Amino acid sequence: MTFDPASLRYNDAGLIPAIAQDNTSGEVLMMAWMNRDAVERTLRTREVTYWSRSRSELWIKGKTSGNVQELVEFRLDCDRDCLLVAVRQTGPACHTGRRSCFYTTVENGAEVVEDGA
Amino acid sequence: MTFDPASLRYNDAGLIPAIAQDNTSGEVLMMAWMNRDAVERTLRTREVTYWSRSRSELWIKGKTSGNVQELVEFRLDCDRDCLLVAVRQTGPACHTGRRSCFYTTVENGAEVVEDGA
Repeated sequence: MTFDPASLRYNDAGLIPAIAQDNTSGEVLMMAWMNRDAVERTLRTREVTYWSRSRSELWIKGKTSGNVQELVEFRLDCDRDCLLVAVRQTGPACHTGRRSCFYTTVENGAEVVEDGA
Repeated sequence: MTFDPASLRYNDAGLIPAIAQDNTSGEVLMMAWMNRDAVERTLRTREVTYWSRSRSELWIKGKTSGNVQELVEFRLDCDRDCLLVAVRQTGPACHTGRRSCFYTTVENGAEVVEDGA
């Protein structure tokens, strides 16, 4: 079946959550949002592209920082309302310089923060 | 620092996305939503609990199907607006009987669906 980006279920703001996972380690790197144009551009260019909710513009991941995500695999879930992209991540995915955005763990009721890069 | 479920950034509906990842394989199993009560209950009981948007009630994953998710690790991201839970998954995570909800891949413009269980 041909894939049509319009067939995904976007929220009221026209966005769908996209989880980025490291293609080799399986580490979950980040979650961000795509709109229809970002989905189409990600598949066409293989440069993972999100929608920046703060800047209200397409966000080609790593375009300014160099920390690009090359698309390796593009998946959607059973409800068609969430995406999972396997990526070849250059440098850190997180703006804090850490590999992943999920560097804070809750253990025994306390937050434990992993060291930065 | 003590973790306060109220310190997370929920959306206008009071929800935060939660990604469930298999603790051993690293496979991303599903994404669902939690509200503050679900976060609190997940941490207290170690039974991963979501908020069902269709039923508008707490959804103790696997309570009726038996396909429970035992919490192994609870993480939050740099923006405090997304959760990542490492789980010990009993049975399939997906309602279709598949291990993961992300069984559809987009390859060369076409949808490729993995076999069901």
